[in-house]
Amino acid sequence: MRPQVVTVFLLLLAGVLYSQTPSPETAYSPQLKHDLEALRDAALNDDYAYRALARLTDEIGPRASGSAQAEVAVQYVAEEMRQLGLEVRLEDVQVPHWIRGAETAELVEYPGQAPGTSQKIVVTALGGNTPTPPGGITADVVVVKNFDELRSLGASKVRGKIVLFDVKFDKQKAAAGLAGEAYGGAVVYRSSGAKEAAALGASASLVRSVGGADYRLPHTGWSSPAGIPAGAVTSEDADLISRLCSHGNVRMHLVLASATAPDVLSHNVVADLKGSEHPEQVVIVSGHLDSWDLGTGAIDDAAGVAVAMETAQLIEQLRLRPRRTIRVIAWMDEENGGRGSEAYAKDYKAEIANHVAAIESDLGAAHPFGFEAKISPEAETLLKPVQDILRSFGANVIELTTRSPGADIAPLAKAGVPAFGLMQDGRTYFNYHHSAADTLDKVVPQELRENAAVMAVMAYALASLPEPLPR
Amino acid sequence: MRPQVVTVFLLLLAGVLYSQTPSPETAYSPQLKHDLEALRDAALNDDYAYRALARLTDEIGPRASGSAQAEVAVQYVAEEMRQLGLEVRLEDVQVPHWIRGAETAELVEYPGQAPGTSQKIVVTALGGNTPTPPGGITADVVVVKNFDELRSLGASKVRGKIVLFDVKFDKQKAAAGLAGEAYGGAVVYRSSGAKEAAALGASASLVRSVGGADYRLPHTGWSSPAGIPAGAVTSEDADLISRLCSHGNVRMHLVLASATAPDVLSHNVVADLKGSEHPEQVVIVSGHLDSWDLGTGAIDDAAGVAVAMETAQLIEQLRLRPRRTIRVIAWMDEENGGRGSEAYAKDYKAEIANHVAAIESDLGAAHPFGFEAKISPEAETLLKPVQDILRSFGANVIELTTRSPGADIAPLAKAGVPAFGLMQDGRTYFNYHHSAADTLDKVVPQELRENAAVMAVMAYALASLPEPLPR
Repeated sequence: MRPQVVTVFLLLLAGVLYSQTPSPETAYSPQLKHDLEALRDAALNDDYAYRALARLTDEIGPRASGSAQAEVAVQYVAEEMRQLGLEVRLEDVQVPHWIRGAETAELVEYPGQAPGTSQKIVVTALGGNTPTPPGGITADVVVVKNFDELRSLGASKVRGKIVLFDVKFDKQKAAAGLAGEAYGGAVVYRSSGAKEAAALGASASLVRSVGGADYRLPHTGWSSPAGIPAGAVTSEDADLISRLCSHGNVRMHLVLASATAPDVLSHNVVADLKGSEHPEQVVIVSGHLDSWDLGTGAIDDAAGVAVAMETAQLIEQLRLRPRRTIRVIAWMDEENGGRGSEAYAKDYKAEIANHVAAIESDLGAAHPFGFEAKISPEAETLLKPVQDILRSFGANVIELTTRSPGADIAPLAKAGVPAFGLMQDGRTYFNYHHSAADTLDKVVPQELRENAAVMAVMAYALASLPEPLPR
Repeated sequence: MRPQVVTVFLLLLAGVLYSQTPSPETAYSPQLKHDLEALRDAALNDDYAYRALARLTDEIGPRASGSAQAEVAVQYVAEEMRQLGLEVRLEDVQVPHWIRGAETAELVEYPGQAPGTSQKIVVTALGGNTPTPPGGITADVVVVKNFDELRSLGASKVRGKIVLFDVKFDKQKAAAGLAGEAYGGAVVYRSSGAKEAAALGASASLVRSVGGADYRLPHTGWSSPAGIPAGAVTSEDADLISRLCSHGNVRMHLVLASATAPDVLSHNVVADLKGSEHPEQVVIVSGHLDSWDLGTGAIDDAAGVAVAMETAQLIEQLRLRPRRTIRVIAWMDEENGGRGSEAYAKDYKAEIANHVAAIESDLGAAHPFGFEAKISPEAETLLKPVQDILRSFGANVIELTTRSPGADIAPLAKAGVPAFGLMQDGRTYFNYHHSAADTLDKVVPQELRENAAVMAVMAYALASLPEPLPR
């Protein structure tokens, strides 16, 4: 080759290599770094997210799928985003409409019982619960520690009984910073226990509440439909029943009078802050708008929605304009079936390639350490400058994972979209999770601001880098 | 005087001085010290108290004054004491019989409310509550921080309203070991709030739950009869109502459908382990047998009864025989009026002089530091050897006080009887106190044993010293 040709060739090669292996040194312009720092600092001093959180919890209240409150929340988020100038769509989601009813339990026969007395048991129905017949059921209780023990009992010893899965949430693990593991170890009995018990002919299924507190507090949650009533008792009541069962026969009267109404038309709120260069390319920031009905869903997950809303607010406040579209999504029905994320994945199937990244916050609002991310090592390298910017308040972790770091963004993560979940300090999260105690006071305003900073900085970086994050 | 007369006189004088100023060096024989150490060691290795506690809580359950369970508990304690060989009397006490009913509240109008929605409030009725009329009441809420604020509002702004006393239990104080002070600062609003509110024409009175936890847990308790419904909301609900009230008008629908049945004949259990030399002289060991109805009253106060029972059991087990009578008392109705201690004080009025001392345990069953005692400095000096024996497990404190260190022994303390209250580590006591979470699991078996050791050693010393404790 002639020297000129060689030079041109080398320049072309360098260009190809550059575009394939973007470097953190070149991808962040001084202006971009400045903007990210400005976003961080504004977030750490702004109360928009907290006000949104207070509106969703104190005023609107519990937002169970299909409830009037959930729809009020949809309208509220949509209106807020419209006021910020975003392009807002309410996207249809048919959601289940399960309604909690009377829920009581008492032990009517047990060893050591005095004549004419009974023991009250604190119980709550699990989401999607099949109700007990009018008047409730009365049956003997059988306590098991795991699925193997249930199966080894067999149908002959389970048929007609109320099965109690007495599986402890590992508080020590949660206190050691492994809250997710502690939850994972116990929640399978909440989600699948009723199904397993029903397969052996049980008349109802109860689970020890999956949570870390000991204040006679029942924790609800989703249970796979099993055709039998399914509930959760408090840790104290699980202990009591287990102790009494170890001495002899225990008989329970159980009322779980919930109802399932026809599906309701609800919505994901999808609000686009349009990108200046590539409006068709999308970075999602999100939390889920529905909650369980016992508390007001402050940490699960009004806080997630609030920091996603705050991301848009901060960018508008600072008059920034990302290259790509930042899409705020308030997901509907994360708790009771995930219909919202399912609908989105279906509706946007053809546009998956244009989804540059998806961020979700759904582990409360305590201090964020950074992110759990299902991204490539190459992408991780490219995000080092973001970590540098988040280091000032200890939020600079990016921990790679192979599973989706968020429930609502799981279909996107599965399809290869780089997925980020905010990684909060989860040590107390499961004390309140899915209980009546998930209320506004559980959120520390400054920690919520930190979460907003983390989400805003990452989203703006992903939407402003010269090239989409490599997959 | 002749020398012989002088000698006799001096000897007599010495004798008088000796009996007036007994010294710890001479009052405790080697045998007595040995017996006290043996009692301590036996207590620290015995499970009788825990088994009694489990019986009272797991099997018998809540023991509200006038309830069937309270009477079952009376029979149980009496039978246990009879089996130990004690002389047992069931002494009549007419107790109130208040029965909790439906208790619900919701905010039906408030600032920021969405059409067709309301906010659920977690409420519990206070003991002796006057019920709301059928269907409940609906009224505006007025929040006050103290009695002065209530009075400054005056009847014109209080009449017909639901008053909420939003007074925080001082958690920092409790964590710093001043749980009693923290409780005292807030409980006056529970006990007297309704009366003060009624005086200004309020339609109902609510108090922020007096307790340290934040798990949407309502704490009940006694409220001075006021002729209007009286309840307690959780700290979360008090926060919510206060926040909403700061933005505008808040209207609540309140149902507290309790009932007051006629007084019921119940009993103090009085069980004497007779003294060998002075059976007429009495040292009381006690706790109260009744509890509130929400939990099973493990820390308040089955634990107190259990360690008093254990005191008798240990003395019998070691075949010891005190000089004076040790009287185990399981008091009835400490919680809802104190009728048991009132009846005892009346019935034993003529025998007060023979009451050498009274011990009560009613601050839970956490590690005991020793005693709070309404005794003379001279008596304190005489108890130094007891402190030495309790020092091995850090229970050697005797803190003098001028008020009664126990509610049930207050009439005796007032009449001059040396009075002792076990002084437990109270840092978490008020997290569970009077709530559904006062259950067996809150008692650590080894700590209960420590409490038994403290009570048994002190009681046996008081019943075995050569002379009654000076007043």
